[in-house]
Amino acid sequence: MECAPEKDNLYKIRHSLAHVLAQAVLQIRPDAKLGFGPPIDTGCYYDFDLKQPITDEDFKDIEKRMRKIIGQKQEFTHQMRSADEAVKHLEGQDEGYKVEYCKELSEQGETEIGFYTNGPFEDMCAGPHVEHTGDIPKDCFKLDAVAGAYWRGDEKNPQLTRIYCLAFEDKESLKNYIQKRELARQRDHRKLGPELDLFSIDHEGVGAGLILWHPKGGLVRHLMEEHSRELHLKGGYDFVYSPHIGRASLWETSGHLSFYKDGMFAPIEVEGQEFYLKPMNCPFHCKIFSSRPRSYRELPLRFAEWGTVYRFERSGTLSGLTRVRGFTQDDAHLFCREDQMPAEIDRVLGFCTKLLSDFGLTDFHLYLSTRPEKRVGEEAKWDAAEDALRAALERSGHKFSINEADGAFYGPKIDICAMDALEREWQLSTIQFDFNLPERFDLQYADSDGELKRPYMIHRALMGSIERFFGVILEHFGGAFPTWLAPTQVRIVPVAEAFFEYAQTVRKKLEEAGIRVEVDESSNSFSKKVREATVAKIPNMAIIGEKEKESGGVTLRRYKVEEQEELSLDSLIATLSDRINDKK
Amino acid sequence: MECAPEKDNLYKIRHSLAHVLAQAVLQIRPDAKLGFGPPIDTGCYYDFDLKQPITDEDFKDIEKRMRKIIGQKQEFTHQMRSADEAVKHLEGQDEGYKVEYCKELSEQGETEIGFYTNGPFEDMCAGPHVEHTGDIPKDCFKLDAVAGAYWRGDEKNPQLTRIYCLAFEDKESLKNYIQKRELARQRDHRKLGPELDLFSIDHEGVGAGLILWHPKGGLVRHLMEEHSRELHLKGGYDFVYSPHIGRASLWETSGHLSFYKDGMFAPIEVEGQEFYLKPMNCPFHCKIFSSRPRSYRELPLRFAEWGTVYRFERSGTLSGLTRVRGFTQDDAHLFCREDQMPAEIDRVLGFCTKLLSDFGLTDFHLYLSTRPEKRVGEEAKWDAAEDALRAALERSGHKFSINEADGAFYGPKIDICAMDALEREWQLSTIQFDFNLPERFDLQYADSDGELKRPYMIHRALMGSIERFFGVILEHFGGAFPTWLAPTQVRIVPVAEAFFEYAQTVRKKLEEAGIRVEVDESSNSFSKKVREATVAKIPNMAIIGEKEKESGGVTLRRYKVEEQEELSLDSLIATLSDRINDKK
Repeated sequence: MECAPEKDNLYKIRHSLAHVLAQAVLQIRPDAKLGFGPPIDTGCYYDFDLKQPITDEDFKDIEKRMRKIIGQKQEFTHQMRSADEAVKHLEGQDEGYKVEYCKELSEQGETEIGFYTNGPFEDMCAGPHVEHTGDIPKDCFKLDAVAGAYWRGDEKNPQLTRIYCLAFEDKESLKNYIQKRELARQRDHRKLGPELDLFSIDHEGVGAGLILWHPKGGLVRHLMEEHSRELHLKGGYDFVYSPHIGRASLWETSGHLSFYKDGMFAPIEVEGQEFYLKPMNCPFHCKIFSSRPRSYRELPLRFAEWGTVYRFERSGTLSGLTRVRGFTQDDAHLFCREDQMPAEIDRVLGFCTKLLSDFGLTDFHLYLSTRPEKRVGEEAKWDAAEDALRAALERSGHKFSINEADGAFYGPKIDICAMDALEREWQLSTIQFDFNLPERFDLQYADSDGELKRPYMIHRALMGSIERFFGVILEHFGGAFPTWLAPTQVRIVPVAEAFFEYAQTVRKKLEEAGIRVEVDESSNSFSKKVREATVAKIPNMAIIGEKEKESGGVTLRRYKVEEQEELSLDSLIATLSDRINDKK
Repeated sequence: MECAPEKDNLYKIRHSLAHVLAQAVLQIRPDAKLGFGPPIDTGCYYDFDLKQPITDEDFKDIEKRMRKIIGQKQEFTHQMRSADEAVKHLEGQDEGYKVEYCKELSEQGETEIGFYTNGPFEDMCAGPHVEHTGDIPKDCFKLDAVAGAYWRGDEKNPQLTRIYCLAFEDKESLKNYIQKRELARQRDHRKLGPELDLFSIDHEGVGAGLILWHPKGGLVRHLMEEHSRELHLKGGYDFVYSPHIGRASLWETSGHLSFYKDGMFAPIEVEGQEFYLKPMNCPFHCKIFSSRPRSYRELPLRFAEWGTVYRFERSGTLSGLTRVRGFTQDDAHLFCREDQMPAEIDRVLGFCTKLLSDFGLTDFHLYLSTRPEKRVGEEAKWDAAEDALRAALERSGHKFSINEADGAFYGPKIDICAMDALEREWQLSTIQFDFNLPERFDLQYADSDGELKRPYMIHRALMGSIERFFGVILEHFGGAFPTWLAPTQVRIVPVAEAFFEYAQTVRKKLEEAGIRVEVDESSNSFSKKVREATVAKIPNMAIIGEKEKESGGVTLRRYKVEEQEELSLDSLIATLSDRINDKK
């Protein structure tokens, strides 16, 4: 999910381009009937019902016509018609799809319908648009693709032809986008996953949205988890384990069966009781909190768990590691007193950016979501929580925005977005107050004055979903994991069989130093060996030939780095260890 | 589950004692009606329908009567009656329960029913018994408890009074058993779990048979898993992760829906497809194996996973950590060529006993289960597998027995039982061939000759269930975990507030050395502090007073060890580190 907000002028350009696109298409397909033509976050599209198909081969012609329309500086004029008039007008134009939609708007209570006209083209449309087509830069757009799309997205309706048009503020932005998209395609984790033998998904044989982690992917995942676990332990967290199913009574107490049932799988019947796969870990952590009386002296309690949750997603929406049905949260719940709460927020925010930066993500944008109209919890607690979040954001030194009234009904939150190597913003971490569950589970602690009080409860997940985070950093690194995370940290490449024995000596030394190493003992040529190590995106190659054998060292070559260096075995180990420690 | 085989003579003594018990009870309750009275693995019991209740206060009297009957050397004589005759005979005695059972036997086709008589007492019974009551040692038994029990275990039937009698070969064995049972009661993991705040089970709020691991239990579990993971990595295993649910198609392919459905939870309906919670991890590992073509050069492949599985157990059978509905297997599947198979078995057997011995379990009994009558797979493979298992057992140097024809239909196996500190045998590890799944999932690799071949597949779990294993070692150690596993490795006990500051200096030093440490800064007296550290079963206490502060050291006292030693801080760290490394 990208977090960037919509830009107003660009929105108008994209929207207006959709009308220009439609006008151009009507020039070559005068009998085309129009569907919808909205702006989208990469440009716009328009849906047509065509008698004669359009393919990418028509793009040049259409683009030329679009530029001509832009050159004509056609003014966009706005007109309102009464709903009845609008329907008649569209019927007169034989625009059946528009008629259907117009009637629907009318039934929903719209009495007036807007139309925009530019040159000979008119469209039912709510705007806004640029003043005239000349406001659209001629070189900011590019027709992108043709695809089939059912009218209103319903497969029972006729299939229309959707033409996608990329559009950005200027030529440079368009070029950048296309370049980045190409890079993103090459780095797509759904492509890299099988290529590097990291994971697989077997829709038919195992189930859609369920991930099989192969040895190499499992190793990287474990390294990620272990690094995070170490930081958690240093940060005063305790690890707990909870089951993947819980009785209906648990989800009734937590309220999930009332407000989250659509995201849950169907129940499992056991001896007349219903059990549900857990969509979240929180209720279990509440149960651990309340498993015995708690004292103010114990707080803050920080329960962490790599908790695998299962959420229902329609099969059509599933995608790679980013939209799945089962995923593992690096989940934790903080339970603290009011006086501890601001410091906890500071800590967890600093913890979060430290952790993400260890994975190479260093550019953050933070979003504070404040109280919505419908909410639970005392006002004083909302005040204190929002103050603490705001103060922590200010102290953090990171860019941040405020999404007023965008918080959950049970508490305000901070979302943390990180920019990856392709300058895409990913929403990763969330720090979320919860004023609801402590009430529902009647959580309390005995304060110093002997009184029983409710603790503050804060959910937080830093990577969010380990699966999705793995997908993000896989793309961020383009599959070339840094040494500390790479399944194979160094591949030894003997230039000929004569050096296999020495290669094994080196391997043993490296293994003793705890380094993950392999030797290429194939009969391939040296250049092929180097090429294969590069294709496998192994971060370090230790080349061994006559010279190296004699000197008792290796030549170290880094992934996609031209320069190489001759090193003794001790220096090799020291160099690799440095890279591992520095998370390089 | 205890593995010790039934002993024949002891069985007769126990069986005969049941008759002696019934005779004695009839002396004081002549109108009692008899239910069943079988031998059990701690003695015997007898069920009575009583008009006037019996309590433990009657035990002395009954035991005296039993000894008198034993003194009478009543001979056991055997008599067969036709089924009809038997029913009439029992009706004449007004023994309604026996009549019912006798009729049932008759309906099942029994034509002759056995009876045993000793002195004035006669019982419908299949034997065997001792020759005469004098063969029962007078001091080998003890009445143990009275409990209610429904006739035939069905709560719709009348409730009878069950009297339990302990019985062993001799007085010494009886005494040992009672002592050990008392120790076992104190060490019961269901009692220690909450006492030491390790885990809890919330039948109503979370679900029966589902474990909540609290911070301290979660820490010990993680230490167990991490130690095991390290050994696995050294042993050439790769870790994979698989989901907790899978489509019906997966379980149809694997055959679980045909031969294991009773052990599985009900299906979860998702968009018209059925998904099942996994009762085993094997099908997923097969899918990872077959996710791409495999070469003979890659083998052996060893896929390991801490895989949490869910199996249906009736709620009445659930108990603590030993009988649960969700548990985590330290599961692995070995895929290898025929020429690699014997060495793999040797390795895994050695691995297993090494791992168990790191947890203080060093006395093993191994059981080989060979081919049953109904089986799948080629005879040659059964031969090779059984040979490899037998040879590995012989080389292992451990005690072993052979359970002929007791293997699963899909392959032979070795079960490994370990004796705990209370001399109870626990079946923990299994090494199990599978000739079924490689066929069903069509697993193959390209051999050196280019031919596609089936790999050997071997399941193995060493701890078995991590939950149950945790329960076993919790009882084995009586809750007093050795230093390497203890949630708190050392508690610093300052004898007075004046030494709190120095205590914190020591704490910091120990923490820097990676030792889990806490300071008792309560206002309790010194002796209460020591008592509390002992109750919490913390393995090491570092006592700090004037002398220690001046010398810059501590006095180290080990859990339940009288002697203590004065140590410098460096020696303290060295001593604790040694204990940790030595798994003490």
